[in-house]
Amino acid sequence: MISIAVLGHGVVGSGVAEVLTINQGSITEKVGQPVVVKRILDLRSFPQLPYADKFTTNFDDIVNDTEISIVVETMGGLHPAYDYAKAALSAGKSVVTSNKELVAAKGDELLALAQANNVSFLFEASVGGGIPIIRPLWQCLAANEVEGIAGILNGTTNFMLTHMVQDGMSFEDALALAQQLGYAERNPAADVEGMDACRKICILASLAFGKHVYPDQVHTEGITHLTAADVRCAEQLGCVIKLIGKARRTEDGVYCLVAPMLVPKDSILSGVNDVFNAILVQGNAVGDVVFYGKGAGKLPTASAVVADVIDAAKHQGAPHCLSWEPAAPNHVLNSTDEAFSFLIRFETTEREALSARLVESFGDITVVNCLENELVVVTSPLSEKELSRRLSALPEAAPISCLRIASL
Amino acid sequence: MISIAVLGHGVVGSGVAEVLTINQGSITEKVGQPVVVKRILDLRSFPQLPYADKFTTNFDDIVNDTEISIVVETMGGLHPAYDYAKAALSAGKSVVTSNKELVAAKGDELLALAQANNVSFLFEASVGGGIPIIRPLWQCLAANEVEGIAGILNGTTNFMLTHMVQDGMSFEDALALAQQLGYAERNPAADVEGMDACRKICILASLAFGKHVYPDQVHTEGITHLTAADVRCAEQLGCVIKLIGKARRTEDGVYCLVAPMLVPKDSILSGVNDVFNAILVQGNAVGDVVFYGKGAGKLPTASAVVADVIDAAKHQGAPHCLSWEPAAPNHVLNSTDEAFSFLIRFETTEREALSARLVESFGDITVVNCLENELVVVTSPLSEKELSRRLSALPEAAPISCLRIASL
Repeated sequence: MISIAVLGHGVVGSGVAEVLTINQGSITEKVGQPVVVKRILDLRSFPQLPYADKFTTNFDDIVNDTEISIVVETMGGLHPAYDYAKAALSAGKSVVTSNKELVAAKGDELLALAQANNVSFLFEASVGGGIPIIRPLWQCLAANEVEGIAGILNGTTNFMLTHMVQDGMSFEDALALAQQLGYAERNPAADVEGMDACRKICILASLAFGKHVYPDQVHTEGITHLTAADVRCAEQLGCVIKLIGKARRTEDGVYCLVAPMLVPKDSILSGVNDVFNAILVQGNAVGDVVFYGKGAGKLPTASAVVADVIDAAKHQGAPHCLSWEPAAPNHVLNSTDEAFSFLIRFETTEREALSARLVESFGDITVVNCLENELVVVTSPLSEKELSRRLSALPEAAPISCLRIASL
Repeated sequence: MISIAVLGHGVVGSGVAEVLTINQGSITEKVGQPVVVKRILDLRSFPQLPYADKFTTNFDDIVNDTEISIVVETMGGLHPAYDYAKAALSAGKSVVTSNKELVAAKGDELLALAQANNVSFLFEASVGGGIPIIRPLWQCLAANEVEGIAGILNGTTNFMLTHMVQDGMSFEDALALAQQLGYAERNPAADVEGMDACRKICILASLAFGKHVYPDQVHTEGITHLTAADVRCAEQLGCVIKLIGKARRTEDGVYCLVAPMLVPKDSILSGVNDVFNAILVQGNAVGDVVFYGKGAGKLPTASAVVADVIDAAKHQGAPHCLSWEPAAPNHVLNSTDEAFSFLIRFETTEREALSARLVESFGDITVVNCLENELVVVTSPLSEKELSRRLSALPEAAPISCLRIASL
């Protein structure tokens, strides 16, 4: 029998207990012995639950229990999750987590600690909820050099954008709907400002390119400034707007970025709607592969956690040695140097004149007349730095909005 | 150093050598030691190649070489691939194969033989080319009971159907184009008659549901009878036609089927075009996840083979114990009992009269008037057996075509 502990009995933690129960038979068969939740850490008590006696408010009951060999961390947040994970690994227990904030901030350190203690530190559920992505990146695509990753990594914003695109909703109405349906929190900042997607692309970039990438190294734009007019312009260009987390390897280092981007409708990512996530990985041998599914939710996320528990249980004493190196100076490049085509909207009543000035300054530029009293243009690929330089030479041309066109 | 042998220096076999060379550095790092091709079995000689001295025409040079610990089989066909795989496993060598015919016909036996010899038998490349699907099904979704699988499993037919849908091409013209571009063989039977997709759904169903499913147990329809008129009808219903391999678990057993089906445009599978493949897996915890990528081609397929080689190399002495049981009587159900909605086209100049007769016989039926001189209807879900029974009661109503609507 493998005894595990679960830290945090919230949505994911309670889902872990549920998945272990409903699929008990097949899990026992896969592991070769039963996997049983022995302890659950939570400040609250749940007297109505059949396993109410397993709750504790004291982490020492878990870390000092030598029968417990796997600790599942589903508390979220950096502290005390980090402290508990460190203590559990140091005590020779494998740790499985769904906590993207923890992995994005401390992944390299916890992986090294796991390796030093000959145990597993696994985090499949930290990116893409139930979608298999960490293990495929690390094992199934092991024969590839990963060249780039682009993903729809946040279900809440994708739900909102889907309604903005398909129903012409405003940002505010889409947010209200998401909150009403429980997809967005009362304070939606982490989702709509892109932080959640940023943490996930950091984890993917660290794994794919071998060195830790920290969230504060990644230029992150959310979707709060997007309007229905942006969506209509994208439509005219045969695109939809998606919040994309993107990482790309170059000879000099790694570009990493989170921003709303125009995605052409012939890209498979354009058809990823509602709360679904999808992650496109470009390998130098395999080409493009995409992993698609529900990026959040109780049972999908719990199923990824439990898959890691099964892995840790099967490989006790010979853990999988997933790892990456600490962050290195200059590994993450300045994203304002990365070239994109931009869609730019200018408010103007003098289209012709402004258009002429832009052609003069930008050279190759395409005018897309999709809105009244506006000049809308698409640039050829150039860096944001270069874009700013050229725009600052045209003080009369103040863009209303400026969006990247995804190059996937 | 890990020494491997490659059986067959065709498209995939030569790709394996290429991937091992171009990504040598990262592969060595992942395995902990270099992986080197020591021998290549082929009846042809390739004197111009830098590794021409590695070729042999005698399998004994490989099976008797104790330095060779992994044998890669990329010959295709059942014999001698099966005999060589069996001999290699019996000699204590791991076997990695891209050969779907071999796995679909002999998977259970070879897995058992590998287990008995404490070596690996791996076949990620046998389904979906470079798309990770075997390992994700077996490891990443290990916490789930798989309920169903539906996939676009054959790139050649998907390329043809894409052109039939997007450009209104006939079957014959689409086939000619696929042959011209090298996507279809001179004798395209295995692709267009569905055998290739059938072998792949057999492998997926065996893995997901735990018992071997043989190709001759699976009702298989190809796309040879599809016409541009079928495609136009599907379009009117908001669907595209895809060749779908489908397996579904029920309490009584497993339904398994390959047939062209109408796929609604709001399904992510409808956007899978050209030579791309996609496999949708429904787990009882994770819900729907989809794996998408190039289902064939030299480097994509080779990259999946090499990922298996890396896995086998890393786990020598403690191989992954992927397995399923031998086929069981009554495990695979009769697919004519599985219920689908059908799109049926009847040639008639008397729509009203025939329509009335159909309503009388079928009860709930929807008339879709999309073609001249035809009556086109959609039935509510019923089994093929039931459909045949009702149609035989209407001898004046001989369908021109009859297509399932995918329920994914």
